[in-house]
Amino acid sequence: MSVGKGIHRVDARGKVTGTADYTDDLCGKALVAKVLHATIANGKVLSIDTSEASKIKGVVKILTCFEVPDIRFGTAGHPFVLEAGHKDVEDRKLLNERVRLYGDEIAAVVAVDEVAAKRALKAIKVEYEEYEPILTSQQAMSDKATQLHEGYEKNILKYSEQNEGDYDSAVKRDDLTIFEETVSTQRVQHAHLENSTSFAYMEGERIVIVASTQIPHIMRRIVGQALGLPWGRVRIIKPYLGGGFGNKQDILYEPLNAYLSMILGGRKVKLELTREETFMCTRSRHAMEFKLKTGVDKDGRLVTRYIEIISSQGAYASHGHTVTGNCLTNYSQIYSQTGGFKGQAYTVYSNLGVGGAMRAYGVPQAAFASEVHMETIADKMGIDPIEFRMKNMMTSDYKMPGKDLQCHSTGLLECLQQGKKYIDWDKKRALYKNQTGILRRGVGCAIFCYKTGVYPFGLEISGCRMTLNQDGSVQLQMGATEIGQGADTVFTQMAAQAIGLHTSRVNIVSTQDTDVTPFDLGAFASRQTYIAGKAIKQTAGILRDKIFAYAEKMLGVPAEKMDLKDGDVINKENGELIADLTVLATDAFYSLENAMHLSAESTVNVKQNTFSFGATFVEVEVDMELGRVDIIDIINVHDSGKIINPATAQSQVHGGMHMSQGYAIMEQMKYNERGQLINGNFLDYKMPTAVDTPEWSNAFVDIDDPTGPFGNKSLGEPTTVAPAPAIRNAVFHATGVAFNSLPLDREKLALTFKKQLKGDA
Amino acid sequence: MSVGKGIHRVDARGKVTGTADYTDDLCGKALVAKVLHATIANGKVLSIDTSEASKIKGVVKILTCFEVPDIRFGTAGHPFVLEAGHKDVEDRKLLNERVRLYGDEIAAVVAVDEVAAKRALKAIKVEYEEYEPILTSQQAMSDKATQLHEGYEKNILKYSEQNEGDYDSAVKRDDLTIFEETVSTQRVQHAHLENSTSFAYMEGERIVIVASTQIPHIMRRIVGQALGLPWGRVRIIKPYLGGGFGNKQDILYEPLNAYLSMILGGRKVKLELTREETFMCTRSRHAMEFKLKTGVDKDGRLVTRYIEIISSQGAYASHGHTVTGNCLTNYSQIYSQTGGFKGQAYTVYSNLGVGGAMRAYGVPQAAFASEVHMETIADKMGIDPIEFRMKNMMTSDYKMPGKDLQCHSTGLLECLQQGKKYIDWDKKRALYKNQTGILRRGVGCAIFCYKTGVYPFGLEISGCRMTLNQDGSVQLQMGATEIGQGADTVFTQMAAQAIGLHTSRVNIVSTQDTDVTPFDLGAFASRQTYIAGKAIKQTAGILRDKIFAYAEKMLGVPAEKMDLKDGDVINKENGELIADLTVLATDAFYSLENAMHLSAESTVNVKQNTFSFGATFVEVEVDMELGRVDIIDIINVHDSGKIINPATAQSQVHGGMHMSQGYAIMEQMKYNERGQLINGNFLDYKMPTAVDTPEWSNAFVDIDDPTGPFGNKSLGEPTTVAPAPAIRNAVFHATGVAFNSLPLDREKLALTFKKQLKGDA
Repeated sequence: MSVGKGIHRVDARGKVTGTADYTDDLCGKALVAKVLHATIANGKVLSIDTSEASKIKGVVKILTCFEVPDIRFGTAGHPFVLEAGHKDVEDRKLLNERVRLYGDEIAAVVAVDEVAAKRALKAIKVEYEEYEPILTSQQAMSDKATQLHEGYEKNILKYSEQNEGDYDSAVKRDDLTIFEETVSTQRVQHAHLENSTSFAYMEGERIVIVASTQIPHIMRRIVGQALGLPWGRVRIIKPYLGGGFGNKQDILYEPLNAYLSMILGGRKVKLELTREETFMCTRSRHAMEFKLKTGVDKDGRLVTRYIEIISSQGAYASHGHTVTGNCLTNYSQIYSQTGGFKGQAYTVYSNLGVGGAMRAYGVPQAAFASEVHMETIADKMGIDPIEFRMKNMMTSDYKMPGKDLQCHSTGLLECLQQGKKYIDWDKKRALYKNQTGILRRGVGCAIFCYKTGVYPFGLEISGCRMTLNQDGSVQLQMGATEIGQGADTVFTQMAAQAIGLHTSRVNIVSTQDTDVTPFDLGAFASRQTYIAGKAIKQTAGILRDKIFAYAEKMLGVPAEKMDLKDGDVINKENGELIADLTVLATDAFYSLENAMHLSAESTVNVKQNTFSFGATFVEVEVDMELGRVDIIDIINVHDSGKIINPATAQSQVHGGMHMSQGYAIMEQMKYNERGQLINGNFLDYKMPTAVDTPEWSNAFVDIDDPTGPFGNKSLGEPTTVAPAPAIRNAVFHATGVAFNSLPLDREKLALTFKKQLKGDA
Repeated sequence: MSVGKGIHRVDARGKVTGTADYTDDLCGKALVAKVLHATIANGKVLSIDTSEASKIKGVVKILTCFEVPDIRFGTAGHPFVLEAGHKDVEDRKLLNERVRLYGDEIAAVVAVDEVAAKRALKAIKVEYEEYEPILTSQQAMSDKATQLHEGYEKNILKYSEQNEGDYDSAVKRDDLTIFEETVSTQRVQHAHLENSTSFAYMEGERIVIVASTQIPHIMRRIVGQALGLPWGRVRIIKPYLGGGFGNKQDILYEPLNAYLSMILGGRKVKLELTREETFMCTRSRHAMEFKLKTGVDKDGRLVTRYIEIISSQGAYASHGHTVTGNCLTNYSQIYSQTGGFKGQAYTVYSNLGVGGAMRAYGVPQAAFASEVHMETIADKMGIDPIEFRMKNMMTSDYKMPGKDLQCHSTGLLECLQQGKKYIDWDKKRALYKNQTGILRRGVGCAIFCYKTGVYPFGLEISGCRMTLNQDGSVQLQMGATEIGQGADTVFTQMAAQAIGLHTSRVNIVSTQDTDVTPFDLGAFASRQTYIAGKAIKQTAGILRDKIFAYAEKMLGVPAEKMDLKDGDVINKENGELIADLTVLATDAFYSLENAMHLSAESTVNVKQNTFSFGATFVEVEVDMELGRVDIIDIINVHDSGKIINPATAQSQVHGGMHMSQGYAIMEQMKYNERGQLINGNFLDYKMPTAVDTPEWSNAFVDIDDPTGPFGNKSLGEPTTVAPAPAIRNAVFHATGVAFNSLPLDREKLALTFKKQLKGDA
């Protein structure tokens, strides 16, 4: 069995020895493009004077926002939707005359090297008309705000509701205790190691873009749309990726890069962002504000739930309301109520950095809101938080009203039980009850649910191709993409198991190239092992059938008697060897009589989904003077169905926990009054480093999901959902202070505790 | 109709603008490998002292012939043969202790740059034991010669016979006039623009080689054999090629290159030959010696034919006797005899440069022998040479005795008629009859036949994959390789026609990558348009069926009513539009209900072959003092079946004629008494340049071959067969001197004519 083994990553050697090629490694000699960014947050460009810049030696081309094609496009890496009403919002051009962001792209320089390009950027003179920057959603929705995009009244990108049961009647019941509070989360950055990098050149009449992207096939479509080209004229090549976390699920600079090459006769042009540009101009996790109102009966059972979400979109639509919608849906799902549910969600434009896809896509925000709120209610009702959750959380009979979405398996209860035991919950809850002094400890927990992939909200198709080599090894070509998360390794294991080979005999093609790669939507929504896994299983079946048919032709044994195990074609009834696959494969290549190249290719269109679950348990020590939160012990316990590779799964969990630690206690993108990001670099934007990092613990509730191709469910994104609220709840337990906004950074905590310590004294 | 149009080459833009990437362009930073070549022709290496060389700064590794794996391998780019008795001769290692060639590979240096590598080469000290160089086949076969390879007595690599009818009886008939003569051809080089270049690196446990090769899939197998690796562990990538002409149908330096990377932990190592190394150590067209004996009846009908061929193989087997055998077979086919045929062919090792595949693979030699000999007989019998050929040449009822090989269509007669008319044969034959003086003119002709591909002598399989893009354009992935000859362009035309699209909507993937490319044997034997054309036609049929099935699901119209023309799915009965393919393709990608990636892949195993034909007619002017032959007018008339692209076909013809001009009057690899090549560079090896080049004329007898996928037959190699003998025959006509050895270079002609002019005077 290949599935379930903790084999080394298939890309380990290349990545460890440095031979793995990333986008920039592949570029070779190219012209260098640099973007001129606006130095106002709201306004418009009146004129751009390039006369001095053009004279600089080595400058090949300057393109301004007045010269780009008059085509608006959307950047969100969603599957294309055939129905006209459901298309992504198209609200920007390659370069923008109307400035909506401090850092908006208003011109580009192409030069023979970076020095010349940067000198030219400095020599370009821009005149603006400047409006007051819109820095909050409240400001954006006020009557006085400038409208940032035509047709979006009060700068509301989109509003939606979700209703279940009869909320309005139920909330009037007089046996309910009503709890109301507000919660908010901050804007953070993905901070992937490799910045956005691409290079583009023409092959004949076609444009080729080599890019660090999670979604090569979607990029093909969006570049085609942005440039007004038939999509087949665009070729995207995706090499190894130095991280994406959702930020590379947006198509930002590649259309511009392509256009610059095209207007220069197809010469190779490279466009690589700096870290500062990445912070300022790419995507971030949406800051959200929540108003929560919950009615609970005397048994501690939730009866009514209400949530209002205001999501701060920033300057452009990007994934926009899809994230907010996912946040709302997730909030509605993790707990149930006996009466009714009402949700109202607003996504609001402003002049801040753009919210997009980021690991878990609205769910970290939803979980923070719900887990803070549940903690408050449990505390106020005097119920143990775990017990309270167990009473109200999603159960296996969950079905989403009006949607083909339901729970097929849940190990959430086991997650809670294992986590509770690990952290020694009952003892420590009691022990840390009435602390005083500077250093205080607490334990907290949080839970989440996470739907795997996007069905029934969107398309879920995935293609796979397998070809047999002369030695009986198999080439595996996936539309789904390795982006650092280990996808190639688990695909290899799945294919090996489904075909009946040792993993060392499955060679995965890591680079996606839209010219030859089967179609798939890409790496997002933690969909790949679930969706692409089904494509692997189906395609392996086809390949096996072809191998057996060939063996029948070669040896005269009926194909239906055959099985393939460990690289041997055997009689499935008695296990006897029929043919060594190497011998059979060599024959298939070279037999004068029968030769044919055995290959299989197929697509799955998956109309099914399932939920994965998990819980974080954490013990913290809070320094009340320094405002410092130390993690003493922490565990993520996941139900992600059957774990394909425990070793790489553990790495995923550790990475997700680490990201959530930063989200909980350190990270926040900060803007000044002009709308300028003031901590957009790794010196000023504080993230956990090695010295901040505790030992991560994790466990898996290894449940077989009946819908998973190998019993598996999503894992990648879920790992980063629960630690932040669990840490917050542990701080609450330790200190008695309910922090309802993220992050719990030192400044906020120290200032808050100062008052409390004074009160104590 | 796409087939038959002279569209621009699909790679024209990239090649004209310089954006097309060749092997070296793709390499980037790499270690540099250089080979140490032996400075004796026959002997063995006693010791190699690398102590000084190792100390040179920048030297990373020195590998000697004493350290390479003890694995012998064959280098010939033939399809692998399953039967043990038919494998290629395995007579060399990565580096060779036993030296058989002045230039044999005895050590290799890897360094950080070329300068360091070259310095190290110079510092290596070698001790040899030297034997007498074997420079002729006669010397090789003598009892005194050293044996160059174990198990090959008298240094004969292989001997074979071909017999038809009862030659021995027929030759005794007393009504025959017997003609006997000897003919010989010289060793020449391919002189492709791009030298042998490769670079290699490891991906995980696999070795990747990017190489300028005609045969990526065969290279995979041979590298696997040479290094003792499972073949699936080897990945070959073939970029654009700067010419091959058969020299890149041998696997020479790539196994060594791969090994050097592997012993350096997978670091990228580049191995690029110089022009001098290319001349000395790669392949050449075999020099052959012919003994011819022919019995003719009084009507000028051939009754018996005998040929003895001694082919000079040089140091290693390479394609060896396969070329000699093809020469013999071709000689037997172009003319028929009423009595019997007997052929005896020897391929003989020596210490000269190695004979391998070169454009037309033995047929230029066969045609030179036969066309000289027919000219002699016609002359001596007083029959017009054209009439004599028409009486005896292959006709449409030809079947090869004992083989599944026959003529399916022939336009040879039309070729002769058109050429005769073009050159104004009758008038000029009379006009130039009795010339005197320094400048004399003559006309001559020659004919040939050429079998397309290798069936029934070898395997002929070819794979093709097509995938539909979102805009209804199609990606075309071929196992067959573009090597500069224009294959990609005609494949595109064939696919467009077979699918029912404009050629601009077929995008061919030019690079072959054994990891993802369908299997095919590669570019040789002028097989590709014939063999791969069938794969295209078959695969297009599958893709069309899938498109129609999808359209039926989408629109409810029965699939069997559909046709696809100019990118529209139409009702094949009334021609009405059913669906625009773009709309249909977009739906196929994104329909929530039906989405699937439409693709088709299939292999053909072709068990059929056909002959193409042609004739050259030429008028020359000979300067009897300078020994100079000027081509006044020349035409190649070809029956290559249906011409897929008249423009690129014409380029092929011109290139072939040019190569044959050099073969006829200039080129020859010359060795000194030590076996050292003395003109192995472009200064000393004389080839026709622009000033030597006449206007090339050509015509096609556009016959539909019933077995060709689009009525087509081979063209690439045939173009270079007939000009050389036609020029020789024209010189004979002009001067009365029968030159029976190639080349008719100035030295030879001037010295010969000197005697004749003295005689005249």
